[in-house]
Amino acid sequence: MLKKCKEKVFRANLQLVENKLVLYTWGNVSERDRESGLVVIKPSGVSYAEMTADDMVVVDLDGNVVEGQLRPSSDTPTHLEIYKAYPEICGVTHTHSTFATSWAQAGRDIPFYGTTHADYFYGDIPCARALMRQEVEGEYEKNTGLVILERFQKDGLKPMEVPGVLVKSHGVFAFGKDAAESVHNATVMEEIAKMAFLTESVNPEVSRADRAMMDKHFLRKHGANAYYGQAKK
Amino acid sequence: MLKKCKEKVFRANLQLVENKLVLYTWGNVSERDRESGLVVIKPSGVSYAEMTADDMVVVDLDGNVVEGQLRPSSDTPTHLEIYKAYPEICGVTHTHSTFATSWAQAGRDIPFYGTTHADYFYGDIPCARALMRQEVEGEYEKNTGLVILERFQKDGLKPMEVPGVLVKSHGVFAFGKDAAESVHNATVMEEIAKMAFLTESVNPEVSRADRAMMDKHFLRKHGANAYYGQAKK
Amino acid sequence: MLKKCKEKVFRANLQLVENKLVLYTWGNVSERDRESGLVVIKPSGVSYAEMTADDMVVVDLDGNVVEGQLRPSSDTPTHLEIYKAYPEICGVTHTHSTFATSWAQAGRDIPFYGTTHADYFYGDIPCARALMRQEVEGEYEKNTGLVILERFQKDGLKPMEVPGVLVKSHGVFAFGKDAAESVHNATVMEEIAKMAFLTESVNPEVSRADRAMMDKHFLRKHGANAYYGQAKK
Amino acid sequence: MLKKCKEKVFRANLQLVENKLVLYTWGNVSERDRESGLVVIKPSGVSYAEMTADDMVVVDLDGNVVEGQLRPSSDTPTHLEIYKAYPEICGVTHTHSTFATSWAQAGRDIPFYGTTHADYFYGDIPCARALMRQEVEGEYEKNTGLVILERFQKDGLKPMEVPGVLVKSHGVFAFGKDAAESVHNATVMEEIAKMAFLTESVNPEVSRADRAMMDKHFLRKHGANAYYGQAKK
Repeated sequence: MLKKCKEKVFRANLQLVENKLVLYTWGNVSERDRESGLVVIKPSGVSYAEMTADDMVVVDLDGNVVEGQLRPSSDTPTHLEIYKAYPEICGVTHTHSTFATSWAQAGRDIPFYGTTHADYFYGDIPCARALMRQEVEGEYEKNTGLVILERFQKDGLKPMEVPGVLVKSHGVFAFGKDAAESVHNATVMEEIAKMAFLTESVNPEVSRADRAMMDKHFLRKHGANAYYGQAKK
Repeated sequence: MLKKCKEKVFRANLQLVENKLVLYTWGNVSERDRESGLVVIKPSGVSYAEMTADDMVVVDLDGNVVEGQLRPSSDTPTHLEIYKAYPEICGVTHTHSTFATSWAQAGRDIPFYGTTHADYFYGDIPCARALMRQEVEGEYEKNTGLVILERFQKDGLKPMEVPGVLVKSHGVFAFGKDAAESVHNATVMEEIAKMAFLTESVNPEVSRADRAMMDKHFLRKHGANAYYGQAKK
Repeated sequence: MLKKCKEKVFRANLQLVENKLVLYTWGNVSERDRESGLVVIKPSGVSYAEMTADDMVVVDLDGNVVEGQLRPSSDTPTHLEIYKAYPEICGVTHTHSTFATSWAQAGRDIPFYGTTHADYFYGDIPCARALMRQEVEGEYEKNTGLVILERFQKDGLKPMEVPGVLVKSHGVFAFGKDAAESVHNATVMEEIAKMAFLTESVNPEVSRADRAMMDKHFLRKHGANAYYGQAKK
Repeated sequence: MLKKCKEKVFRANLQLVENKLVLYTWGNVSERDRESGLVVIKPSGVSYAEMTADDMVVVDLDGNVVEGQLRPSSDTPTHLEIYKAYPEICGVTHTHSTFATSWAQAGRDIPFYGTTHADYFYGDIPCARALMRQEVEGEYEKNTGLVILERFQKDGLKPMEVPGVLVKSHGVFAFGKDAAESVHNATVMEEIAKMAFLTESVNPEVSRADRAMMDKHFLRKHGANAYYGQAKK
């Protein structure tokens, strides 16, 4: 069942290790199969070195396990809230990558400081608020998804223009049109977070880059008139 | 004698190199054999590349060498104080890993800033006080163990809830139910120390994460009702 | 056509990956063929792992594709402005390398702090101003080249004495007598940028190194009486 | 001639690359042959990847090339001043390693902050003053050696107790009883420099570790009653 999708999710999870975004089992990637609407996700607490594509778990949008011998990632309800709110998202990556998580722990949005950022994120990378006690003690992982949605809705953000978010005191969630793209965006977030830290160290008075630069770089790569890369066939 | 335990301690010491926690011979791992109560530890000043499982040294809790051609690690008395005080600890790792040792040199506890921390440490990671002149000039390595115990007792800390400690002006000691788990915890301490440094750089006004978050993350992984990972069989 | 030059440009682009100057497709290298005056450059948005020497694109100084199935790098017009202004430059590298780009985002020249710097750069490494809105909305990539030239001309800099430049809110451009040398200089810029960041962290009151030191180190390596390295045959 | 010594110097130079202390040709190691009093050193500006043991150059203490097809390192006169002043030194390493060089650029001694430091350096790691204009314009490399000696003599330092030094605005020189030990000490200096930078970042008010700790750690490893490591046979 969903053999190809499992293979993609499996490979995307291994990519986390190759891109040095995770220690031990500190991350997980999922993908929504567009046809069936089901979600394939990494099993909980299984090491990347030992797991196989067949270990990937299939769940429906309510979190019921449809196929798989293992428990799905404990963060599954967070992924599902994101999928339910945004049909265009079909890949979600969660990490505790070093620099981006440090911004999350610091509780700050990552400011737009340059074109590296604007090539992927159309504006600051938001940091969602910390969960309140009752949200933590209730359906914690589901509520983590809800504070992400709250932030996107409050600021009118579009997840394909801002394909990633921090959660205060926690870590990183990145989005994509599939599992691989969400890992790509999580990798970029880590690099942007590192550069933003260094930028402020080198110049504590730095201000955001110009809006015109942001429009130019995001749109030359992602807009209707994009001219970066090769023409799509 | 204790062939299996020597093999485990040997592998755990090599893990220090793979996880980039040590330069040269700057670290050592031991394990207490639950049955005999004896401790197997790395020999002193022997390079990781040259040593074999057979080089591991067996000592009793008083520090007498029970088996082995080589001198045990000069830090052996520190390990032994920890084992004597806490029967639940059966693995100890000592390192000078870069970021965690920098916190030790700075003489600061590592504050609880997020869930990465709470997944392993139920509260701040303590920094034991520096030894006083007479403690240094007396049984130095044993006294290093005693200031660790002093700190745990003073604050009422449980080593399986806070499985690691810094010693001021010195370095890192991590605990576990066996050698491998103590290395795992030492690896996590290094990453948490790095993130805490970055977190404070990004936001010098940052305060600790919420207590509810700490309870949630530590207990979903370690408590009686833990639901992270796969069910134990 | 220009088979040898394509091979050199191909290898120089791969060197960006080996030297850890790029993530994904975030960099490009070109070389001007001295005989024909044509420029060979990396194709746009093609991954380093998949591309071959044959994929390199040949353009003339007006940006017309003379040979190649793929679109040239979107940054081609920046490269061309540099080649047109300085006949001695026959290699250009563009990267978003972490530390140097952070200085670019900070909008600061990298001060001359020591001999590592002076072995390659005869003075501070300049940071060209950000483009204005109309420059961004017009011929953006060409104008990026023009602000670089503006800075060199304003300060009377010679590109073979200062073989690299930052562009505010953007990244790094490095020069050389061929593609390989421009990559070499981009690699050095990244290291110098890292050291300058650390130097200011360790001593916020630091001032530039002495002019005599700068003359000595640059000229013992690059001047008419250079004595570093082996005699040229 | 000095075949074994050339092999040792060759391997020690390659160790610089393995230990990530050098970019390109930014470092050199020499060894003094105790019997002949001659010094074997890396040739100038030759890449580590291409050179062979036979390329090592033999010079006498006056800098005359006794054997070798290639020019010796341009830093040879600095090495020779050190050998002439201290008969106990038979290995010298020069690098521009990132963190230690940043302290040199900052013009600061590296303070003794912990046992990692004291295991190798019996007190702060000194930073020799910058050369004055006439010293730079005169016999520059020889004068670099002289400011190192000046600092050791002024402070009454012994090079086997403080086996390394920074030179302001320049880089690192480390000493040893042979080439390999000098590389070992250069590697340690880089790590200590990194930790000291981090220590001050984590606690800007930090003060030096206690003298008793310094005595204990240096002497348990290097003194007449050393008990670290295995008994020398």
